[in-house]
Amino acid sequence: MSSSPSLDQLVEALTCLPGVGRKSAQRMALYLIDKNREGAKSIADSLNQALATVKHCQLCRNFSDQPHCEICQDSRRNEELLCVVETPADVLAIEASGSFSGRYFVLLGKLSPLDGVGPDSLGLDLLQERLRGEPIKEIILATNPTVEGEITAQFIADLAKQHGVHTSRIAHGVPVGGELEYVDSGTLTRAFSGRQNYN
Amino acid sequence: MSSSPSLDQLVEALTCLPGVGRKSAQRMALYLIDKNREGAKSIADSLNQALATVKHCQLCRNFSDQPHCEICQDSRRNEELLCVVETPADVLAIEASGSFSGRYFVLLGKLSPLDGVGPDSLGLDLLQERLRGEPIKEIILATNPTVEGEITAQFIADLAKQHGVHTSRIAHGVPVGGELEYVDSGTLTRAFSGRQNYN
Repeated sequence: MSSSPSLDQLVEALTCLPGVGRKSAQRMALYLIDKNREGAKSIADSLNQALATVKHCQLCRNFSDQPHCEICQDSRRNEELLCVVETPADVLAIEASGSFSGRYFVLLGKLSPLDGVGPDSLGLDLLQERLRGEPIKEIILATNPTVEGEITAQFIADLAKQHGVHTSRIAHGVPVGGELEYVDSGTLTRAFSGRQNYN
Repeated sequence: MSSSPSLDQLVEALTCLPGVGRKSAQRMALYLIDKNREGAKSIADSLNQALATVKHCQLCRNFSDQPHCEICQDSRRNEELLCVVETPADVLAIEASGSFSGRYFVLLGKLSPLDGVGPDSLGLDLLQERLRGEPIKEIILATNPTVEGEITAQFIADLAKQHGVHTSRIAHGVPVGGELEYVDSGTLTRAFSGRQNYN
């Protein structure tokens, strides 16, 4: 039995967060109400704000507050390079690494006929439109190295070929800082097949 | 660089949660906006609801939506037993165990002169008022077994003595399911000094 129904309801609501069980939710709720009411207010406000404004960019399908997202609007971006990823989280990871200066296309999924995910749900008609209308010279396929990710990459490579656009696939191999001894055999196989000349 | 300032702001707000860093906050924000907008709405609503309604109970200082909390209002509770704890989280833990049927008094802290926490900030005047006005026969001291917790327990025991009320301290010792081998020496010392007759 708790002393406050509103608090119980807050705990209940917080358990919907990924990786948050009842115990963590309780700790969060008590912390917010007891020690950080300002933080609580700011979470509530920014949730409502995000729910009201965040839509998908009409060019790259990433999350955006405007019809065209900030990355697509940025004229300093190299418009000849297009990186295709599965999710918005992938874009965040690549942006955090600072290793890419072109634009993106977010599939919001991967080809998976068994789950009913075909080319239409991935916005590939929109991608073809961009290949026709924009000066894109290279598509960098950055889908995940899973069975579905590879099939999706292959499918998009075929599309690009029809439009005469060059495609490349990001390298898969031993992660930097990883030790060979602990790397799984699938990764090692990719590391060997993808080996490059060493000068 | 992210594609949506509203999303960035949400990630920023979520990092104020205890145990949540930037990476987890990002995962939570993307999950809420991408996959569970209903859950996001419910978190925002229950946060606002809790911020507006949750106050402290005028009797036990625990969180409450009304002037008197649900536990203090419950007439089935044993009014002769009063358990003194440091925080609302302690009440939740004791309630979850179902091991106590009396009422509570929540100190919302512990005596700590160095941090400027004296008897006043712990509501001990309110506690004395209750000792005078209610048929309390026993105070169960359930403050934590830390230096400050012990000093606080001692202080409250002295108060209770002035009002002719019996006090007891919850047992400290080897946790159930714990193995002797892995228990720290402080706990073992308490386990020996607190040993009971075995029939």
